[in-house]
Amino acid sequence: MAETNPIRQTDDAARALAQALLQQARFAALAVIDPGSGAPMLSRIALATAADGRPLSLLSDLAAHSVALKSNPAASLLVGEPGDKGDPLTHPRLTLQCRVRMVRQDHADHARLSAHYLALRPKAQLYAGFSDFFFALFDIDSAFLNAGFGKAYRLTAADILS
Amino acid sequence: MAETNPIRQTDDAARALAQALLQQARFAALAVIDPGSGAPMLSRIALATAADGRPLSLLSDLAAHSVALKSNPAASLLVGEPGDKGDPLTHPRLTLQCRVRMVRQDHADHARLSAHYLALRPKAQLYAGFSDFFFALFDIDSAFLNAGFGKAYRLTAADILS
Repeated sequence: MAETNPIRQTDDAARALAQALLQQARFAALAVIDPGSGAPMLSRIALATAADGRPLSLLSDLAAHSVALKSNPAASLLVGEPGDKGDPLTHPRLTLQCRVRMVRQDHADHARLSAHYLALRPKAQLYAGFSDFFFALFDIDSAFLNAGFGKAYRLTAADILS
Repeated sequence: MAETNPIRQTDDAARALAQALLQQARFAALAVIDPGSGAPMLSRIALATAADGRPLSLLSDLAAHSVALKSNPAASLLVGEPGDKGDPLTHPRLTLQCRVRMVRQDHADHARLSAHYLALRPKAQLYAGFSDFFFALFDIDSAFLNAGFGKAYRLTAADILS
């Protein structure tokens, strides 16, 4: 019988690890629902965090994930990248269950979010102003931290946001 | 106006890149449908390929993704990991739209799949025989190769399988 991988009691070390995984992420896997098939659909997106710690990305309307999110804002993010060495399943990773809020250029929050994002990701200046690009702000519903075999935690948005 | 990122005509170079990304992957992001909420849900899994090129993993019944797959076999995989340097969005990656087939220890194909998987991933011998572990074989419905900005391809299962 394998270890039953019980959910541990969330402590400050788990909160700090989850926050670090999210803050350090330059990119994430994004899962959305394909509106045609209803199946899950994966892509890679650039990632940063807003001032309050919420995940923040800059997406294009031309991408399939954006079409999907307009139809259904439910999304999941995965951050925490293994290196080239060792067992990739012992490397800590964080799953976030989210709802995406789209912040477009005519939105009151756009200028503030844009200045914040571009300070963190200056190369995005090249395309951030294109008319098909918008900011995706991820409201966290819940999170799952896998810190290695037998070390799993269920977290709330409050555990992760600053 | 941003580059419209058109889908290019699939050629042998795109097929070879997609096959290489999948063959080289030691792990993948897996998206499934959470049966409770209907939302997409992400996790990281170990990955190898079966003899015919189909993605193959060893999963535990105790994991949330396994519970989800029993309810709905639709899944998406993302492979192709950026290194530590450079723009992670220029690194090629492959999205697979799949249906998962569970191959348990009482299944006629289990011994053959197990021998194949353990030859590729010998460390999995430690837990492959536990009663809660099964092989997940991914039947590919379609694939999307993003080989960098403006270089996108839609692929079929035949483009990827050997």
